[in-house]
Amino acid sequence: MHLYAGLLHYPVYNKHYDTIASAITTLDLHDLSRLAKTYGLRRLYVVTPLEDQQRLARRILAHWTTGYGAQYNRDRKEALAVTTISPSLDAAREEIADQEGEIPLLIATDAGRQAGQAISYREAGDLIVSARTVFLLFGTAWGLDRAVMEQADYILDPITGRTPYNHLSVRTAAAIVIDRLVGRRDVQI
Amino acid sequence: MHLYAGLLHYPVYNKHYDTIASAITTLDLHDLSRLAKTYGLRRLYVVTPLEDQQRLARRILAHWTTGYGAQYNRDRKEALAVTTISPSLDAAREEIADQEGEIPLLIATDAGRQAGQAISYREAGDLIVSARTVFLLFGTAWGLDRAVMEQADYILDPITGRTPYNHLSVRTAAAIVIDRLVGRRDVQI
Repeated sequence: MHLYAGLLHYPVYNKHYDTIASAITTLDLHDLSRLAKTYGLRRLYVVTPLEDQQRLARRILAHWTTGYGAQYNRDRKEALAVTTISPSLDAAREEIADQEGEIPLLIATDAGRQAGQAISYREAGDLIVSARTVFLLFGTAWGLDRAVMEQADYILDPITGRTPYNHLSVRTAAAIVIDRLVGRRDVQI
Repeated sequence: MHLYAGLLHYPVYNKHYDTIASAITTLDLHDLSRLAKTYGLRRLYVVTPLEDQQRLARRILAHWTTGYGAQYNRDRKEALAVTTISPSLDAAREEIADQEGEIPLLIATDAGRQAGQAISYREAGDLIVSARTVFLLFGTAWGLDRAVMEQADYILDPITGRTPYNHLSVRTAAAIVIDRLVGRRDVQI
């Protein structure tokens, strides 16, 4: 499996649908790192162009991977070692391409249906287990900017629970998406 | 669907497997309320015997359901309205029994395999969509105390990702569990 995830803090929407760079939420780093580690992702990219936010995120990662946190909680160390800070989607994508020797497919996620090439969980899961390099993109704040959708090869079907209410956190949405894509692949998908 | 969830802060384990009452994490209330609302759960019980923690949690709920937060973010108001604070598992269970006119089945969750009557996602999902009242229990900190497992009618199979690493946050674990149980029930499960 050559699966990568990106947690984008830019470009994303705020509640008024302006394009912004959102602030990093510490707990996102922990939850998504643990998720990535549990499901065998190759790397989690935390993307932000803001240098102070990059520094903050790197300090958190260092605390848990080489600092006091690494002794305090070895499980957390193992999880956060899977995570890298990157200044842009392009930079992260290039790093993956260098690593894998192929350009990753970009699959964007969104809570609503967006213009673009839709892909189901089954189809996307098939691509991933076929060993294609895939970069799965999650947006913070009110979701990924249209510019990311336009760059993406595919847009994954929205989650849709059992009600019209459709406002999950990026932490819980990412967990559901990754479990649907590869979680019970041996059993059924 | 007569599905309820409980987020237990007591009795749970700390990292040394002592039984403790854990502190409430604000983000848990938000993430799990939004999840409960998205998947059509009847109610989320946040269980803690600590009175200062109950007050804290009630203040957070009030802020988002009747205070400034309710105007600021109506979606959040709708989600947090699904959530109640309860002093104990027994109190929450009695409240559900009064509400539904039947004792709820207790299904406990755990990251590892525990002694008790195991149940698969498919079987548990069948119970839930058969309209049986079910109370699904999640533990904070290092997980539910054995005493809760012994009270439970069933213990849901652990999640297991794709690696031996098995340390999800309760937020992401609850999301995966609820999606597996009822999320794509119409499509496949």
